[in-house]
Amino acid sequence: MSRTASVVIAQGGGPTPVINASLLGVVRQAARELGAGGEIWGARNGITGVLQNCWLDLRKVSGQWWDQIAASPGSALGSCRKMLNAEEAARAVSTLKQKDVRYFFYIGGNDSMDTALKMNLAALELRYEMVCCGIPKTIDNDLPLTDHCPGFASAARFIAQSAADLGMDIRSLPTPVSVLEVMGRDAGWLVAATLLARKDPDDAPHLIYVPEIPLILEKFLSDVQTVYDRLGWVVVAVSEGVRDEGGQSWSGRRDEKTTDDFGHRLPGDVAATLASLVTSELGLRARSEKPGLLGRSSAMMVSSVDRREAEEVGAFGFAWARKGNTGFMASIERQPGPAYRVSYGAVPLQEVEGQTRLLPLDYIADNQNDIRPEYRAYVEPLIGGPLAPYARLDTAPFGCNNLTTRGQ
Amino acid sequence: MSRTASVVIAQGGGPTPVINASLLGVVRQAARELGAGGEIWGARNGITGVLQNCWLDLRKVSGQWWDQIAASPGSALGSCRKMLNAEEAARAVSTLKQKDVRYFFYIGGNDSMDTALKMNLAALELRYEMVCCGIPKTIDNDLPLTDHCPGFASAARFIAQSAADLGMDIRSLPTPVSVLEVMGRDAGWLVAATLLARKDPDDAPHLIYVPEIPLILEKFLSDVQTVYDRLGWVVVAVSEGVRDEGGQSWSGRRDEKTTDDFGHRLPGDVAATLASLVTSELGLRARSEKPGLLGRSSAMMVSSVDRREAEEVGAFGFAWARKGNTGFMASIERQPGPAYRVSYGAVPLQEVEGQTRLLPLDYIADNQNDIRPEYRAYVEPLIGGPLAPYARLDTAPFGCNNLTTRGQ
Repeated sequence: MSRTASVVIAQGGGPTPVINASLLGVVRQAARELGAGGEIWGARNGITGVLQNCWLDLRKVSGQWWDQIAASPGSALGSCRKMLNAEEAARAVSTLKQKDVRYFFYIGGNDSMDTALKMNLAALELRYEMVCCGIPKTIDNDLPLTDHCPGFASAARFIAQSAADLGMDIRSLPTPVSVLEVMGRDAGWLVAATLLARKDPDDAPHLIYVPEIPLILEKFLSDVQTVYDRLGWVVVAVSEGVRDEGGQSWSGRRDEKTTDDFGHRLPGDVAATLASLVTSELGLRARSEKPGLLGRSSAMMVSSVDRREAEEVGAFGFAWARKGNTGFMASIERQPGPAYRVSYGAVPLQEVEGQTRLLPLDYIADNQNDIRPEYRAYVEPLIGGPLAPYARLDTAPFGCNNLTTRGQ
Repeated sequence: MSRTASVVIAQGGGPTPVINASLLGVVRQAARELGAGGEIWGARNGITGVLQNCWLDLRKVSGQWWDQIAASPGSALGSCRKMLNAEEAARAVSTLKQKDVRYFFYIGGNDSMDTALKMNLAALELRYEMVCCGIPKTIDNDLPLTDHCPGFASAARFIAQSAADLGMDIRSLPTPVSVLEVMGRDAGWLVAATLLARKDPDDAPHLIYVPEIPLILEKFLSDVQTVYDRLGWVVVAVSEGVRDEGGQSWSGRRDEKTTDDFGHRLPGDVAATLASLVTSELGLRARSEKPGLLGRSSAMMVSSVDRREAEEVGAFGFAWARKGNTGFMASIERQPGPAYRVSYGAVPLQEVEGQTRLLPLDYIADNQNDIRPEYRAYVEPLIGGPLAPYARLDTAPFGCNNLTTRGQ
């Protein structure tokens, strides 16, 4: 392989707040190892940019600009959700061959790892010597064979802080119930992270529902009523991916069965649906919040740990590829011991492809409406320091409440 | 009035991220002016705490604790949404008289100013000498006779940054349309603040809909299609308060006309409804985000200007009351001149009560789907510094894009 071999990097799927830090990690390491020799290209809009021969010259980006790019949400190269077929993979490899590209990096989640694998297989098939490497990225945290995925920790920080914020708001008001919708199509890692908002046992969120467990309406309503009877207010965190006992989405259900007066299907928001049912079935005023994409695009709530690891895993990916390895996804390995430390590794793309790592059932409480405290040890070191230290008057240690409250 | 006269403070309505800074402002000024002489009580849960004789002894709160309380979302005293009648006002005044309370402060929005006024009238009626003062607070920014309302600026910062975040996410992805729902029941001040997210003309949000103007479906869809045809992606900011030409809520409409399979009314979320209509009518994949209460409870996104003014307006309120004034709401007056400076004033509660200050039509663009740049001069000084300085590769000044992109 020539020392002047070119590098191509692309980004696939939904962004994370640190996806551009991984891009920076690959670019910086490549520039370091290749010197002035090789070209470093970004493909526009993921693999479609390769197929369409659409490039950004990443050598032209100054260091200062990179720092700002790395701190910006969204995929700086643009993204796509394209599933590559074998013919397209062969065509993409041919395009890269024409540019003398010897290193191909795909930053993304499960679908993107599938693309990276197909590119690797197509290169082997065409006997073109090109390293294909996946750099993990997903707020869902559902890639296998890595302790966690870059992007997850920042989204976890955002949603845990949001649950804490919401709790402070709701507990001071007469609207007693709020349902907070959390991203995560299949896996409950992210909604489980709202556990971090809870400093005292009665803090929000009081109920947490993951997509790994069917959400049964009767049980859900009973859970809400139980918390309400005890505390007088309830914050529920629910994954957008929760399904009923028949495997149907709590969002999709509604879409399919109801129409508006134009005859159109209505939008299916899980939290809005459940809040409505709390009101109609229990007679409790309930509302819903759905930060949605804001949960993966807030540069204000980036975890410093996540930011660092996202860049380092990208740099490791290039270094490992440069050593002659191919067909791998870079991974994060947590080291044993009381202090949080990681190292980076590589796992075969074949073993990653098609796998979704769900939240282990061990983390789910027996009554299936909460997360066990053990999960805290997994997620807390990732979020980059404690949440905002909120204080309250009614439970203050100086006892301005207990000593002076007098019911009539 | 004795020097040892007691003070009562209460908080009403929905909280803001700085409502506790106003509480701190009143308490600190009261402690300063009264010395060790007077008691300083917080009523639990607004005026209901007065009626129920339920108090917190705010003298017991240490300075360090106050700093943390002032930085915490939610109403630290608890809140209520109670409309006071004359009999209750008389009863509340009698309760305060028993405690020798000579200063009554109500921190809140339009409804709370009504309560403060009724308390003032009841005290006059009962010939009990007690100052009644309103301290403004509302993210909706719709109290009259003040340049702006504490709480608004932080909510504006939150939603403007959110619109910028969302824009960075959506523009990098194939899901082309997102509708962002913004709080604001009647007035468009807050949704208009999303204008600040726009640095370049093509930045998000592309369309802004305020409650002051009816949202006509056909025009809305045509607006979205026009932006989509030009850019290929669309971010819409819409107030939760928008109504159709008949004055009916875009949320309520749906509630009243559709039911789920239990026969219950469905939740009415404006953004979700409009996103659904974009998909069904225009065939564009659309989604919605609704940060909801997070927009008024994020302590991460507090405006430093708002934080300072919220405390100062509370302190001014006490100082003005101490000079023998009553029946007023403290106000913020913007000083003329190029630099942003404010002073504090007092306006009669009679002139505040029942008034909702809408967004002036002058700020609304002729085509009624956007905000005029003139609004920037009003809102920008309030939010406490620029938003996060996001960068992009595809429009970078070094031209890594223009020089190298080659369509096939």
